[in-house]
Amino acid sequence: MQTDQIDGLTRLFVIIGDPIHGVRTPTVFNEMFGRKGINAVMVAHHLAAADIETGWAGLKTIRNLDGIVITMPHKTPMSGLVDSLGINGRVAGAINAARRNSDGTWEGDMFDGVGCVDGLKRQGHELAGRSVFLMGIGGAGSAIAGALAQAGVKRLVVQDIDAPRLERVVERIRSAYPELSVGPGTIGDGPFDVVVNATPQGMREGDPLPFDPSPLPASTLVVDVIIKPEVTPLLTLAQKTGHPTQLGRHMHRGQAIAVAKFFGFDLESCAGQSGARP
Amino acid sequence: MQTDQIDGLTRLFVIIGDPIHGVRTPTVFNEMFGRKGINAVMVAHHLAAADIETGWAGLKTIRNLDGIVITMPHKTPMSGLVDSLGINGRVAGAINAARRNSDGTWEGDMFDGVGCVDGLKRQGHELAGRSVFLMGIGGAGSAIAGALAQAGVKRLVVQDIDAPRLERVVERIRSAYPELSVGPGTIGDGPFDVVVNATPQGMREGDPLPFDPSPLPASTLVVDVIIKPEVTPLLTLAQKTGHPTQLGRHMHRGQAIAVAKFFGFDLESCAGQSGARP
Repeated sequence: MQTDQIDGLTRLFVIIGDPIHGVRTPTVFNEMFGRKGINAVMVAHHLAAADIETGWAGLKTIRNLDGIVITMPHKTPMSGLVDSLGINGRVAGAINAARRNSDGTWEGDMFDGVGCVDGLKRQGHELAGRSVFLMGIGGAGSAIAGALAQAGVKRLVVQDIDAPRLERVVERIRSAYPELSVGPGTIGDGPFDVVVNATPQGMREGDPLPFDPSPLPASTLVVDVIIKPEVTPLLTLAQKTGHPTQLGRHMHRGQAIAVAKFFGFDLESCAGQSGARP
Repeated sequence: MQTDQIDGLTRLFVIIGDPIHGVRTPTVFNEMFGRKGINAVMVAHHLAAADIETGWAGLKTIRNLDGIVITMPHKTPMSGLVDSLGINGRVAGAINAARRNSDGTWEGDMFDGVGCVDGLKRQGHELAGRSVFLMGIGGAGSAIAGALAQAGVKRLVVQDIDAPRLERVVERIRSAYPELSVGPGTIGDGPFDVVVNATPQGMREGDPLPFDPSPLPASTLVVDVIIKPEVTPLLTLAQKTGHPTQLGRHMHRGQAIAVAKFFGFDLESCAGQSGARP
């Protein structure tokens, strides 16, 4: 829709972050609102880390605000500021979306990992019952760990240079998914059906590999969360040695779809929706 | 512009109020931003009276927010929450717009009365040196009183059923414009070049007239701030007795033009602008 159709009945969605200049999420959601004929708009708020408590208290007073999308550096602090957390938010200790429920409370959850897992499913990779190695348990890694657990993997081995952080996330996964075999380890503790890099290693030229995929069986799926470069040295090597791979960009469309669903919208259908809350 | 062109570089403007469903200001501003090719958007925030302090503290944390438009019931409280006040905001004790200056401080001012006065000027009525009677010194009335003083009227007689409020506004005008003859009185204290109704009397059928224009000299301009009905019983009678009149709607376009100018935009030109702040 045209911005001059925005009026006093327009429902609001906001994405917060610092920096914010590169966000693409408003385009994705506003294109959907326009296509479906929904009187709603998403705008980007440039909000500094130090301002999150005051900023969030203010956002909550906007009665026509229905949901927010959360980017760096607010994902972890916001998990402590909403009224309730979904299971992936609890496991990750961070959220990337929050919605106003019909009772007026704000519920947050984390869809960064769901995007990765949905990307794998869309490409035909089954995760239930599989064994997975995950390198890196920071923001992206802990979100992916939670989504893998939710998707029903049987065994999850995680590695991180920050031992206390690793232990914290493993504990949260264990208490949320007591039936899952999860613990610290290395890529040598295989066999694994899927191996995932969730570290930044591979973003800059000359970075060491997060791990060496060469010794893995050819059927092992190699996944990287890095978006730029699209094909990291890890994926190049994995492709050379005959492994199936998933690129970072595949998880991003999945994230947007999952967040839209959380807000009450089907990002991919054409029909109009009410955006009804649970 | 299309809402799906909103991105992380889009500058924000917000209108706050309760109720907010009927506002037309976003349409006026967004139409201008689109016409000029400015990457900016105005959205409406439904904000209750009790939430103004928390809401405003939050709004100030949005680093890409450049200005806000203020409607009922926030005009008076907001005059105490900004960092500095323009002269019309000081006189009215209320503001309808605030902007972020280049030093990061927020400056508020009142343009409701400026709109009325600019409407008169656009219709060719000179105000400098004139004698004016103003009935009603509430929100609209005190704003008009300030704008009349700023426009250089020589004598201003005001009447209101709330004597303490009347005295407060008269005092504020006197201290801002010591050279102006201003004081309480009635329409009998003429002669007046202009008489203004700034009370709600005339909105509902059967309302008594705010004052009787019949005995006034035919040259006296009769002004009403009421928008609905467009032609009030006061204006009908004034037209019957041969007086020139100004309708309420004439002040509204003037308000939007004045607020846009305060924000750094020329609402009526076609050329693009930077929206540079002082």
